Amino acid sequence: MSSLSENPADLDPTDPTGEVRARAEAYRNWGRWGEDDVLGTLNFIDAAKRQEAARLVTEGLTVSLGQEFNEDGPQKGWKKRNNPVHTMTGTGLDAERNPGVHPHGIGGADDLIVMPLQCSTQWDGLGHIFDHGYAWNGRRAGDVVTSQGDQVTGIEHAASVLVSRGVLLDLGRHLRPETGELEDGYAITTADLEACVAAQGASSAVGRGDILLVRTGQLARVRRQGWGDYAGGPAPGLSLTTAGWLHRSEIAAIATDTWGFEVRPNEFHDSFQPLHQIVIPNMGLTVGEMWDLEGIGRACAERGRYDFLLSAQPLPITGAVGSPLNPIALL
Amino acid sequence: MSSLSENPADLDPTDPTGEVRARAEAYRNWGRWGEDDVLGTLNFIDAAKRQEAARLVTEGLTVSLGQEFNEDGPQKGWKKRNNPVHTMTGTGLDAERNPGVHPHGIGGADDLIVMPLQCSTQWDGLGHIFDHGYAWNGRRAGDVVTSQGDQVTGIEHAASVLVSRGVLLDLGRHLRPETGELEDGYAITTADLEACVAAQGASSAVGRGDILLVRTGQLARVRRQGWGDYAGGPAPGLSLTTAGWLHRSEIAAIATDTWGFEVRPNEFHDSFQPLHQIVIPNMGLTVGEMWDLEGIGRACAERGRYDFLLSAQPLPITGAVGSPLNPIALL
Amino acid sequence: MSSLSENPADLDPTDPTGEVRARAEAYRNWGRWGEDDVLGTLNFIDAAKRQEAARLVTEGLTVSLGQEFNEDGPQKGWKKRNNPVHTMTGTGLDAERNPGVHPHGIGGADDLIVMPLQCSTQWDGLGHIFDHGYAWNGRRAGDVVTSQGDQVTGIEHAASVLVSRGVLLDLGRHLRPETGELEDGYAITTADLEACVAAQGASSAVGRGDILLVRTGQLARVRRQGWGDYAGGPAPGLSLTTAGWLHRSEIAAIATDTWGFEVRPNEFHDSFQPLHQIVIPNMGLTVGEMWDLEGIGRACAERGRYDFLLSAQPLPITGAVGSPLNPIALL
Amino acid sequence: MSSLSENPADLDPTDPTGEVRARAEAYRNWGRWGEDDVLGTLNFIDAAKRQEAARLVTEGLTVSLGQEFNEDGPQKGWKKRNNPVHTMTGTGLDAERNPGVHPHGIGGADDLIVMPLQCSTQWDGLGHIFDHGYAWNGRRAGDVVTSQGDQVTGIEHAASVLVSRGVLLDLGRHLRPETGELEDGYAITTADLEACVAAQGASSAVGRGDILLVRTGQLARVRRQGWGDYAGGPAPGLSLTTAGWLHRSEIAAIATDTWGFEVRPNEFHDSFQPLHQIVIPNMGLTVGEMWDLEGIGRACAERGRYDFLLSAQPLPITGAVGSPLNPIALL
Repeated sequence: MSSLSENPADLDPTDPTGEVRARAEAYRNWGRWGEDDVLGTLNFIDAAKRQEAARLVTEGLTVSLGQEFNEDGPQKGWKKRNNPVHTMTGTGLDAERNPGVHPHGIGGADDLIVMPLQCSTQWDGLGHIFDHGYAWNGRRAGDVVTSQGDQVTGIEHAASVLVSRGVLLDLGRHLRPETGELEDGYAITTADLEACVAAQGASSAVGRGDILLVRTGQLARVRRQGWGDYAGGPAPGLSLTTAGWLHRSEIAAIATDTWGFEVRPNEFHDSFQPLHQIVIPNMGLTVGEMWDLEGIGRACAERGRYDFLLSAQPLPITGAVGSPLNPIALL
Repeated sequence: MSSLSENPADLDPTDPTGEVRARAEAYRNWGRWGEDDVLGTLNFIDAAKRQEAARLVTEGLTVSLGQEFNEDGPQKGWKKRNNPVHTMTGTGLDAERNPGVHPHGIGGADDLIVMPLQCSTQWDGLGHIFDHGYAWNGRRAGDVVTSQGDQVTGIEHAASVLVSRGVLLDLGRHLRPETGELEDGYAITTADLEACVAAQGASSAVGRGDILLVRTGQLARVRRQGWGDYAGGPAPGLSLTTAGWLHRSEIAAIATDTWGFEVRPNEFHDSFQPLHQIVIPNMGLTVGEMWDLEGIGRACAERGRYDFLLSAQPLPITGAVGSPLNPIALL
Repeated sequence: MSSLSENPADLDPTDPTGEVRARAEAYRNWGRWGEDDVLGTLNFIDAAKRQEAARLVTEGLTVSLGQEFNEDGPQKGWKKRNNPVHTMTGTGLDAERNPGVHPHGIGGADDLIVMPLQCSTQWDGLGHIFDHGYAWNGRRAGDVVTSQGDQVTGIEHAASVLVSRGVLLDLGRHLRPETGELEDGYAITTADLEACVAAQGASSAVGRGDILLVRTGQLARVRRQGWGDYAGGPAPGLSLTTAGWLHRSEIAAIATDTWGFEVRPNEFHDSFQPLHQIVIPNMGLTVGEMWDLEGIGRACAERGRYDFLLSAQPLPITGAVGSPLNPIALL
Repeated sequence: MSSLSENPADLDPTDPTGEVRARAEAYRNWGRWGEDDVLGTLNFIDAAKRQEAARLVTEGLTVSLGQEFNEDGPQKGWKKRNNPVHTMTGTGLDAERNPGVHPHGIGGADDLIVMPLQCSTQWDGLGHIFDHGYAWNGRRAGDVVTSQGDQVTGIEHAASVLVSRGVLLDLGRHLRPETGELEDGYAITTADLEACVAAQGASSAVGRGDILLVRTGQLARVRRQGWGDYAGGPAPGLSLTTAGWLHRSEIAAIATDTWGFEVRPNEFHDSFQPLHQIVIPNMGLTVGEMWDLEGIGRACAERGRYDFLLSAQPLPITGAVGSPLNPIALL
């Protein structure tokens, strides 16, 4: 029987169903913001939090936390997730060779993109994951996400919300000061998170309404070594047992530099992304993945300061269960 | 012969070539930031400007300036520009009907999008427009934008740059206080811009490094009346004769709530977007179009204050000549 | 109460539900080819039929019955159906300007397409239409077509089947000899079909295993006048009351030169494509739409001969509920 | 200096440029069918040939030579070539769960596809390959294929042409009777082709206007072993030295069961698809790749007969430099 222990050693590796169910029930926020809620923990962000965040901007420095979107990404086609295909419908070659086609010598280039919304740096929307056929706030999954998209909690509802104080917990540097990189399969625990906060100092205190960024360093490694199985393979990430800490910290959102935010392989004999199942449909937590935390990791380490204004708005794609984005830290 | 007059009445409607050439030469910034420059007027944004912008955040209020991306947009297929198509590769219906497919009851939805990068709220990158076969900074168009995309000035170079002080000039409310909407075909002049600044007061002073937003009110009208010819048809917008003001104001970027930023029909008998030809390849100005300035227009009017922190980062699509975005004003 | 009358005047325009139900039950072929059937009336095509069809080839003439696939098609975005977007990922401009990029002077162009499978000349697969939540052969619709496609009756099952004797009934020429075009809203009746067979002569006898082509002439008209509402608007087409004739003729498939095969507006006060509901999920009939019957219409009229070998294979897109195609008549 | 030898041992592996040039000049068909020609060797197909082909239909048997189009294909993203992505815009799940949404209980499913035109079973159009910046018939590559597609020789011109006598040369069975599969890297020679014709007997005589199919057996192997490097890696295929035989045989088109039709690695130290460079822009030969010749291989072997009616029409995508297709053999 599950004990809600926050020590991974206490997990029963043969019972993902029980371990997930216990945490789903314990940390469920259904109804907390009313029956009609479409934002979940994003409700924790308020004006005071944004004022606080803006006051963190002292240097006027911006750092992009977004990977570039191109064909050379990590995707391999799983769940029809290819890398984005960017293609030109007009080019400078056309314009240069035939300059007289348009009046007064104007020429133009145009382009289009085809991309899975989960192909690179992205937010998981609240309609991305279900628990036994139920979506965020206790709605039937089929009442929420149909072939026409997420009819209730589409990412467009978060269009203007995702600007807050960002806090980086650089677990890579904290736990592996020599390399700055956690090894694949490393399960980050509640104790690790708390020790990292303590070690990094006051600027990394995590609280209500913050957007938490957890750097593992895996992205730095695959950039050196090639994508390999970055998309879905072994990775460092959060242990299932951090669910309680994620709940009581009252963060608005969380993002990591890995494909799937939680540790992989997952901590059970037969399991698939169990922490997602707790935090998205039950807790209402917006989850970011494949963020590039290398630049902000260096900037924070240099300054010994770990918080900043984070502007992490999604593209408001109507009915989307996720969105690519280019998060910007301003410090 | 062109006189660089900033009075539209002085334009020779039969000579777009001459009028464009004169202004292209007069306001050309080629070489201003070095031979290798890829940012153009975005170089005007500096740390001090961003510090100033952050100090404008007093309330902690966010306003999205992005239209939603969906199939019901204004596009009609011109230049292969369709409205975005968002399609699901997994849904809640699947998850609900077959909850036991995945371990421990987890289910998921996924989606993808196909979209021209100029389909809705967007930035024109520096590789979007050419002048007689030449691109920004004097490069041959065919050396810059090939079938593989913009090899030199792709939008990814602006990934972390487009955060600055935003200033709204609400020409709709200023010139048409009763409706708040300029009529289609109205050419905004330098005099209009200056009078609007004067009328709106000190918070709307426009200077080096600012991102200028010009609200015409056309979007409010088409929302009431249907898209009609919003994509490419008649619209209020900047007169060609504002090129000098745009140059000497040293703004970093400009955006409007119209399809094409400049007045349409254009101010010549046979012409196509002549102001684009001056400001993008010659001046190096990043131009935003189809922004939703309704919410920020109301917010500014209520407060009598017209500047704010603007986080308008593009998606860093490698080699793109433009990007959809969700600009956020923080005030 | 419905009488299965084949006279449109007998239809109760206020009772589409009853009129559809009566015909669905009367002409239902569920189980006719076994519980596992995935082909429906395509089962009527046999080797003898194909031998007969091959013997019709006397001249060695081929006629394409496919419209071209391009951006200038009739689609307007309904049900996310845009016109196909064909875009180049390499061009001759690139190759010509930089001939030395590849070894020994080779260069290449490449392209991709984005297209709804129902955007132009196409087959409706058996999973395209449902009747009260049931698909062909009595299966639950949700057991057949999920977000992963048609798991049972995908168009790939028909990959090698759709070659048979084709018969053209040129209702346009038969009923309107002066123009060759039926007017929009004209409901083709069983009597019309039979009279056309009689008038055209022995080569147009329609029987088991044939692929029937019904030319209305609407495509010729929209080509002169512009697409207008070709996609979904008023059109000539088959009356609901032809369902019985379609059933007893034992044709393998049917195709027309209109968007929707049946007459539009439909023959009820509030209805949507009722004949589809009878023939696809109940009868198991494969239906072709937006075929270009102009060339074959002329060829047949010139010869006074209306049958030919028809090679109308779909693209075997796994799990598709339809397919674009380029049907070829060989005579 | 190149000798046009048809023995691979005579090739100078250090001089692909010379070996290609010699054959390009020797086998060039520019002007053979007039200055305006857009079909190349497809001109060899005439009515008599199609009459002959139709007479080959004795059994009424159809065999599809097309692979299925789905996400599990061989592509890995090279040149933005992904596997096709087929996605549903409506499903039976939606229809079943909400049957009353539409009048009289009708429901529907719809879908769309995104696919590179070279993703699976396909024709290379005449605009697909260039020789030193020149396309078929001596045109400048940039006059032919721009960002708007192939303006001259687009695949739509071949819409009704590609129906002829097909002849299978089963090199796999002929050269490797025990396995039926040639090993990767095996270069098929003129002598091999001629010996295969002789061994297979009279029905495999190859002549003017035929569509030649060369089965290597590689597809059977990768189906057992996984795609591996099927797309672009080592493969059996035609030697550069067969160019003369391909020219003098006056075939209309050729297709193989491999990714690239010619032997890979290519027969030079530094080379890329040199036989393409000779046959497409110079000879005007339409080339098919990734065809599934397993079924037709078995059918021919069982019958000891190697010719049939082949209906291999492309999708008429306007301006395309290639096309997916589903070729049908009728015998």
